[in-house]
Amino acid sequence: MSGRLIGVGTGPGDPELLTLKAVKALGAADVVAHFAKRGNGSNARATVAAHMRADVVELPLLYPVTTEIAKSEPAYGEAISCFYEEAADAVEAHLAAGRTVAVLSEGDPLFYGSYMHLHVRLAGRYQTEVVAGVTAMSGCWSAVGLPIVQGDDVLSVLPGTLPETELRRRLGDAEACVIMKVGRNLAKIRRALQATGKLGDAIFVERGTMAAMTTMRLADKAGDEAAYFSIVLVPGWRDRP
Amino acid sequence: MSGRLIGVGTGPGDPELLTLKAVKALGAADVVAHFAKRGNGSNARATVAAHMRADVVELPLLYPVTTEIAKSEPAYGEAISCFYEEAADAVEAHLAAGRTVAVLSEGDPLFYGSYMHLHVRLAGRYQTEVVAGVTAMSGCWSAVGLPIVQGDDVLSVLPGTLPETELRRRLGDAEACVIMKVGRNLAKIRRALQATGKLGDAIFVERGTMAAMTTMRLADKAGDEAAYFSIVLVPGWRDRP
Ligand SMILES: C[S@@+](CC[C@H](N)C(=O)[O-])C[C@H]1O[C@@H](n2cnc3c(N)ncnc32)[C@H](O)[C@@H]1O
Ligand SMILES: C[S@@+](CC[C@H](N)C(=O)[O-])C[C@H]1O[C@@H](n2cnc3c(N)ncnc32)[C@H](O)[C@@H]1O
Repeated sequence: MSGRLIGVGTGPGDPELLTLKAVKALGAADVVAHFAKRGNGSNARATVAAHMRADVVELPLLYPVTTEIAKSEPAYGEAISCFYEEAADAVEAHLAAGRTVAVLSEGDPLFYGSYMHLHVRLAGRYQTEVVAGVTAMSGCWSAVGLPIVQGDDVLSVLPGTLPETELRRRLGDAEACVIMKVGRNLAKIRRALQATGKLGDAIFVERGTMAAMTTMRLADKAGDEAAYFSIVLVPGWRDRP
Repeated sequence: MSGRLIGVGTGPGDPELLTLKAVKALGAADVVAHFAKRGNGSNARATVAAHMRADVVELPLLYPVTTEIAKSEPAYGEAISCFYEEAADAVEAHLAAGRTVAVLSEGDPLFYGSYMHLHVRLAGRYQTEVVAGVTAMSGCWSAVGLPIVQGDDVLSVLPGTLPETELRRRLGDAEACVIMKVGRNLAKIRRALQATGKLGDAIFVERGTMAAMTTMRLADKAGDEAAYFSIVLVPGWRDRP
């Protein structure tokens, strides 16, 4: 009598971009776990609201407040590891009691998702399934109707958290690109795109597929404020037959 | 009275990985168009079979037989452009008559999808919507439970159709990678992975999420035969907290 772990991709934000398999997983789940910052609701939780069972047990996994510790400091890493260990223990308590636990993950679970930290700790020991989701990048380029790659195009997916020199080096050798984790990194991203001649082609998308979505050419955007849910797309497919 | 074009992502093959939005689009479509090779059924068409309207008009778009012409020859490019022009005309005839046309696309439509050739020809002139889909790569890494990227990892998506030197060069500077379009290119891909020290980490997935899925470490795979629906994944996330 041991439980089942399901990592459930909830897509980029539009509730209609949930898969049938995600809806089914939510119907089967005794417990629904979701990561969130203290004080913020989980966005994934809001996306799936219509499909949660009335008798479901919710398990919010709240990130520790670490704003005073720089990410480069060892104390930050320790606080975060400790949080993931505790989150895995909380999920495991339900699994050990034979329950089915769905862990919500924005976009696709194994693509920069927090679910991954639970997966590597629990997947070997409990029956586990991962329900693929529509990624944020697919949601964004579809919402703006931007062909991203075709034929022999290479796509580089770059986190905006990379150091500026590395971001510039990668962009310099890239064809189509997606820059994730834009939030507080937009000024740096803009400089790196400019330096590599790609700023003119870059499209900025904030809250893609959500009700409050905005989009514009990055070159036309005034200021470097960007929501957490922001992405930059540089399309490939230069010579179209 | 002019029609509506919808590019519909049908996901990696498992019919449950369709989105609610795709199901809704199929319910609204007067015409469902799908690309296929002559003699082969469309895989996307099979994936959505349960959701097609009984009174729907089907519009198969059959690739010309070009096996005798090398892709590098101008005659190949001409045959293909000509085919896309004709396909766009066939779709446009329905749009001009005020119909809603859903064009099926495996995975996500704007990510190496044939739909893109219709999109660039028609999107400016008719009301157009693109329904993002779960990509083949998301379906494959989820099906095998393989965490692909986390934190500051870079993901490189490389078509296996690239020349060997370019494939090797790109792999040499890559962290996590996905190699698409594996089919007839597996021997070349294997050599490039070997040369860049990545063969030991590479996972081969054939018909990911479909009933006939197979997977193994690429290093353990005997022979270089691979189905059209094959992908190679090299995971990132080396130092897990
Ligand atoms: C931790 S990553 C999670 C990615 C997710 N698992 C996926 O499959 O796309 C979070 C980043 O995804 C991007 N993102 C997620 N949802 C988005 C949306 N609706 N619009 C724009 N960017 C989004 C932002 O760049 C954000 O910083
Ligand atoms: C023309 S591309 C289309 C990609 C698609 N639009 C997507 O979003 O993934 C076709 C390639 O996708 C990959 N592919 C598609 N479905 C797959 C599956 N179920 N399993 C493995 N690879 C698949 C193969 O590498 C194939 O050569």
